[in-house]
Amino acid sequence: MISKAKSKFIKSLQIKKYRKQEQCFVAEGKKSVLELFNSDFEVVMLAATEEFLQQYTGLIRKGIEVIPVSTNELSSLGEFQSNDSGLAVARIKPNEPVTVNADEFGLVLDDVRDPGNLGTIVRTADWYGIEKIIASPESAEIYNGKVITATMGSFTRIKIYYTELGNFLRQTPHQVFGTFLDGENVHSVNFGNGGLIVVGNESKGISGEVEKLVTRRITIPKFGKAESLNAAMATGIVLDNLRRR
Amino acid sequence: MISKAKSKFIKSLQIKKYRKQEQCFVAEGKKSVLELFNSDFEVVMLAATEEFLQQYTGLIRKGIEVIPVSTNELSSLGEFQSNDSGLAVARIKPNEPVTVNADEFGLVLDDVRDPGNLGTIVRTADWYGIEKIIASPESAEIYNGKVITATMGSFTRIKIYYTELGNFLRQTPHQVFGTFLDGENVHSVNFGNGGLIVVGNESKGISGEVEKLVTRRITIPKFGKAESLNAAMATGIVLDNLRRR
Repeated sequence: MISKAKSKFIKSLQIKKYRKQEQCFVAEGKKSVLELFNSDFEVVMLAATEEFLQQYTGLIRKGIEVIPVSTNELSSLGEFQSNDSGLAVARIKPNEPVTVNADEFGLVLDDVRDPGNLGTIVRTADWYGIEKIIASPESAEIYNGKVITATMGSFTRIKIYYTELGNFLRQTPHQVFGTFLDGENVHSVNFGNGGLIVVGNESKGISGEVEKLVTRRITIPKFGKAESLNAAMATGIVLDNLRRR
Repeated sequence: MISKAKSKFIKSLQIKKYRKQEQCFVAEGKKSVLELFNSDFEVVMLAATEEFLQQYTGLIRKGIEVIPVSTNELSSLGEFQSNDSGLAVARIKPNEPVTVNADEFGLVLDDVRDPGNLGTIVRTADWYGIEKIIASPESAEIYNGKVITATMGSFTRIKIYYTELGNFLRQTPHQVFGTFLDGENVHSVNFGNGGLIVVGNESKGISGEVEKLVTRRITIPKFGKAESLNAAMATGIVLDNLRRR
């Protein structure tokens, strides 16, 4: 049985303001919880079913508050209903600059606001071995529960830095790729060994300020009639092209 | 001002049972409404702001009930909050078999249950010029409001047929491609001029029954650590590879 105060604390973390205040976030469900424990995040609390705790006794470490809960309690604690294993509270990492080296690729998110899209982008970046993301301050927050869930655990392996993109891009020595309707065909672009890939906002695309700082305009060729691709989808397709030999 | 009865009717269409009973569905927002009027769907009702109706007077045709509404009324009528233009009610099309010809590609959805994923798949299929989808009866319903919205209008250009996949695939003369962890690298697969691409369920992947009917096992190569790709993402990446010359 979980106390009212603990329950209130966990639920409060569904709201950005309280995540910021407490510097904590929640990961729900077996996959996210296990990935979290397997990462360098500092876990402070684990609320899980007796069954889950028995199966993963190794997770119960010094300094982590472990609270056995029923599946009903879990559903009421969490943002998502279908959780029959557990949820963990962990510390938010400081927003520190990331350095993209000359021989690697990084993503730049220009106001990607939908949490599902950000989650899918993080998961896909992790599939394609992209570890660094630079995001505009208006982009969705990585610690939002919907983002964490959509990443399927990949949030533990990605470094994300929120900063003004104008300054960041003016200082980068790398190529800056951006998708537009009038660029080079992504099927024949030579991406080289490293660079930055800009992902635009869901409805407005890449902003005027960032567009000026794009050095290579690329296009995903269209064969049908849709007006555009979803932002996360376009990112995945660019990454697949970039990794192909 | 919209009557209580009309308002109740429109709202009831958010529920599958009532969509089935009334054989009608709702498309919300400017983009979806305009695409709907530009398609062969039979529109029966248009609830829109005065501003929208003035801008698109051409839409007001015989046989369509037009109801001027305020933006507040629109928000309360619809499933999504940010609609300041209109919504339309249209007739559901009968579930008729689609024929995939030898020189074209079709998608086969093996229990794609998430409406957002189905919507993204339809939008992406439309981008890549794929017009035919065969879906298992347990797949998300195309007329679900979340699906319609996520397709960004592409639902008007795609033919979808819900049927048992076993029977369908046993009778097809085409190649059946499916993504697995142990298939041919999608970057070097020769897709030929036509065939079917199977998309698996979000958590279980392709079912055992359907797997037996797959004739070409393909794999999207992984360069990082994510366990899998989102089902819609994997579909888009396969389609991009399939269209490349």
